[in-house]
Amino acid sequence: MSAFDLQAWMQPHLARVEQALSGGIAAHSPAALGQAMRYAVLDGGKRLRPLLVLATAEAVGEAPGSTSALNAACAIELIHAYSLVHDDMPCMDNDVLRRGKPTVHVQFGEAQALLAGDALQTLAFEFLTPQDGSVSAGVQAACVGLLARASGYQGMAGGQAIDLASVGQRLTEDQLRQMHRLKTGALLLCSVHMGAACAPGVPAPVQAALGRFGQALGLAFQVVDDVLDVTADSATLGKTAGKDEAADKPTYVALMGLAAAKAYADALATQALQALADTELPEARLAALRALTAMVVERNN
Amino acid sequence: MSAFDLQAWMQPHLARVEQALSGGIAAHSPAALGQAMRYAVLDGGKRLRPLLVLATAEAVGEAPGSTSALNAACAIELIHAYSLVHDDMPCMDNDVLRRGKPTVHVQFGEAQALLAGDALQTLAFEFLTPQDGSVSAGVQAACVGLLARASGYQGMAGGQAIDLASVGQRLTEDQLRQMHRLKTGALLLCSVHMGAACAPGVPAPVQAALGRFGQALGLAFQVVDDVLDVTADSATLGKTAGKDEAADKPTYVALMGLAAAKAYADALATQALQALADTELPEARLAALRALTAMVVERNN
Repeated sequence: MSAFDLQAWMQPHLARVEQALSGGIAAHSPAALGQAMRYAVLDGGKRLRPLLVLATAEAVGEAPGSTSALNAACAIELIHAYSLVHDDMPCMDNDVLRRGKPTVHVQFGEAQALLAGDALQTLAFEFLTPQDGSVSAGVQAACVGLLARASGYQGMAGGQAIDLASVGQRLTEDQLRQMHRLKTGALLLCSVHMGAACAPGVPAPVQAALGRFGQALGLAFQVVDDVLDVTADSATLGKTAGKDEAADKPTYVALMGLAAAKAYADALATQALQALADTELPEARLAALRALTAMVVERNN
Repeated sequence: MSAFDLQAWMQPHLARVEQALSGGIAAHSPAALGQAMRYAVLDGGKRLRPLLVLATAEAVGEAPGSTSALNAACAIELIHAYSLVHDDMPCMDNDVLRRGKPTVHVQFGEAQALLAGDALQTLAFEFLTPQDGSVSAGVQAACVGLLARASGYQGMAGGQAIDLASVGQRLTEDQLRQMHRLKTGALLLCSVHMGAACAPGVPAPVQAALGRFGQALGLAFQVVDDVLDVTADSATLGKTAGKDEAADKPTYVALMGLAAAKAYADALATQALQALADTELPEARLAALRALTAMVVERNN
């Protein structure tokens, strides 16, 4: 076991993502809209999806400074951020606290929150299509195709629709897994696929194993989320704890109990690590993905 | 003057757009979300933006059956449709009538309207990145780059933010033009640019003249919109008439009076036609764009 230092790996990557996101929302944008967008995106969040993009790109051989990987990392964080802004609105989850701050609609009003979410989604696709020739048209088109399909009605938005329809319903484990596969899993899996797409020519078996990794990790993430909703307090979580239970939302904890849900998360992490081994990529290049997997399961917010 | 039959030209194009849009929102999507998306997009609207894409693509030499042009046509209509769904919501314009039907949030509830708008935006980028090899990566990337920049905070969404901030304000004509250049003009101009991008290798002077055409047409469209808000009734308009005046929104009619606004629309149409002539493309290939320009200025809804 190598002594991989995740924090040391993450620090420069996070700094680059933060800088690129900040630079992407120019100061000269219509004042209130730009402020709401920056508020929603900057200085918050674990940046798990961008880190997965960057770690996967490096695993398949992209250089750490890859522009295509950085753009894809920012794009997926923008999609995630837009979904949170809209999810928190009164007509959806009506939440007032996110990442330890008032939600965007509380801070800027509903109209700006709606517009900011819309514009953040669009900005993701601007990031994937830089106009300076730094990323090939092939990589641009591949990443847009992946991100759009993971985000839309057959992906994240579809999962949210199932979620809306399922409040107060008793779902089977299969139905719950399908909802989460779309609602949160699709973007996490897409992070992995986009990272791999940044390096053209990744062999199909490697892509397939990375896909299995992304699916197991995405599901593990959601199971841990459900566990934390029950076990963590709002201050640690940075968002309102106990919301799912209060809203009678179907969760893994509700379905299988707390101890079994924790054990399931661990089993999924083991599956994810096995899929990484199946890629047969050099062990050193997989270290960041392994460490991110551990982070997902061991996180407390 | 050739006897160009716009209706005969439009009919098969509209049928293809309608069919492609309908096919793009699969029946197996989460039920309520798919219904809301279809309701928002199908069987309504003048399809001006798709027609502009298709007419421009043909003007620069694409075949009438071009897949790339059809995809771009659908994509821009999806962006337009999403913006209407969100614009009509209670926290924005709070409108209940659109294209002669109850608005999406009235019909399906606010949460579904929010999600449907989000998913329609995403679907636009799916249309631009078909996975069947029918459109080159270069055209895919070019169209995504154009559409994202026209729709986001530096385009349509930015214009909506200025609009939000300007209710009850007295804008100068320059400020009003800037707002509309973003809010409605950016998508109309983008229709022209995407149409031209479907045929790689269009000479820069032709692209520039088409750009001037798109800008003049976009502004003419907005001026006519302002005129119709005052002169048409809700039944003809298919949406609530007199809204702008009631909301004390800045309009060209408020700024310059009704007669001058009508004359300005005509002058802009003349500019648009001159820009078409400046392309020096064969006159027969420009006929549809000329006829669409006349339609924009002479429309009554």
